[in-house]
Amino acid sequence: MKINLITISREFGSGGRSIAQIVAERLGYAFYDKELIAKAAERTGFAESFVQEHGEKHSRFFSVPYSSATFNGMTTEDYLWSMQRKIILELAEEGPCVIVGRCSDYILRDRKDAIHVFVHADPKDREERIINQYGVRTSDPAKTIAAEDKSRRKNYRYYTDREWGDVDNYTVSLDSSIFGIEGTAELILNIVQTLSGEDSPEE
Amino acid sequence: MKINLITISREFGSGGRSIAQIVAERLGYAFYDKELIAKAAERTGFAESFVQEHGEKHSRFFSVPYSSATFNGMTTEDYLWSMQRKIILELAEEGPCVIVGRCSDYILRDRKDAIHVFVHADPKDREERIINQYGVRTSDPAKTIAAEDKSRRKNYRYYTDREWGDVDNYTVSLDSSIFGIEGTAELILNIVQTLSGEDSPEE
Repeated sequence: MKINLITISREFGSGGRSIAQIVAERLGYAFYDKELIAKAAERTGFAESFVQEHGEKHSRFFSVPYSSATFNGMTTEDYLWSMQRKIILELAEEGPCVIVGRCSDYILRDRKDAIHVFVHADPKDREERIINQYGVRTSDPAKTIAAEDKSRRKNYRYYTDREWGDVDNYTVSLDSSIFGIEGTAELILNIVQTLSGEDSPEE
Repeated sequence: MKINLITISREFGSGGRSIAQIVAERLGYAFYDKELIAKAAERTGFAESFVQEHGEKHSRFFSVPYSSATFNGMTTEDYLWSMQRKIILELAEEGPCVIVGRCSDYILRDRKDAIHVFVHADPKDREERIINQYGVRTSDPAKTIAAEDKSRRKNYRYYTDREWGDVDNYTVSLDSSIFGIEGTAELILNIVQTLSGEDSPEE
């Protein structure tokens, strides 16, 4: 069966976003990361920076009702989640695409033409990448990474009742420290090609 | 770098053992599963059935000192663990091999020429496989699978201080329901070949 949807979840600093971009380019699929943020911002009226910051992170101090009139009593977080969910489902209907994060693996779990990838990496590589490539300014990169992962994990657990980074959620998980950015992308492309081929897997 | 060691951890009923066997055969590598049990039995003096039952499962009722004289105050479980660990380290020195379960991913985590695979599968497929292929007799296969996974998880956590099935522990994790038994084995072979090739991964 042709694989039309690829969700890529990733640890902070694993290079998952770059991998997703390569995969989308090579397949000629739409790529949704920043674009998804822009759409969610437009739909909700929130600033893009606000969606970027809160769209997949869980903040303890943030879960207070923002305006019960506007959001039907939902917290801002819940409202943002429900809009993001709708947008992801709509985008998945529009055509083949690669979607980064935002619980998209969970939201699209029933699509038979989807694969769900998780990209992780060695702690040292992640620390180096956030400093040298993402330009994060921090005196303690290990702590920054732990905090970011924690808020993604909490957000994921809250909205999906599943564990972020639990192998069962993903068709495949890959260590980008072992395979490299290009190598990880190639493995994903190989998998998409194999599954999309005429041969169905033997059992 | 040539990949000499492949550890395959697996959910009960995922077909991980069959996959490991195919991979070992195609690569011409030694295959350690039952062989490991036999060696551990020989070394410890325990019956093979006892090693099979307790070598990677955690039983609450089992953690009592067996004979403090013989095992230096260790519980039988701890003694069996330490002997299994030694055997796995020795086998890894002897030559290229594929090892199934028994925390081998953790025990061989520092070997640069190793990859660590986790095989998981859809609950329905697992239930069908344990009944029709493993010949397990149970009126509630879902419960049997949950109990088996739980004891593997507890055992893994106890001896490694890591979470069984956490993506971070594995170079790659694969859903055998999506790829099939043969397809999963082929993906692993492809990965071994790629990593063993002359091109080192970029990035």
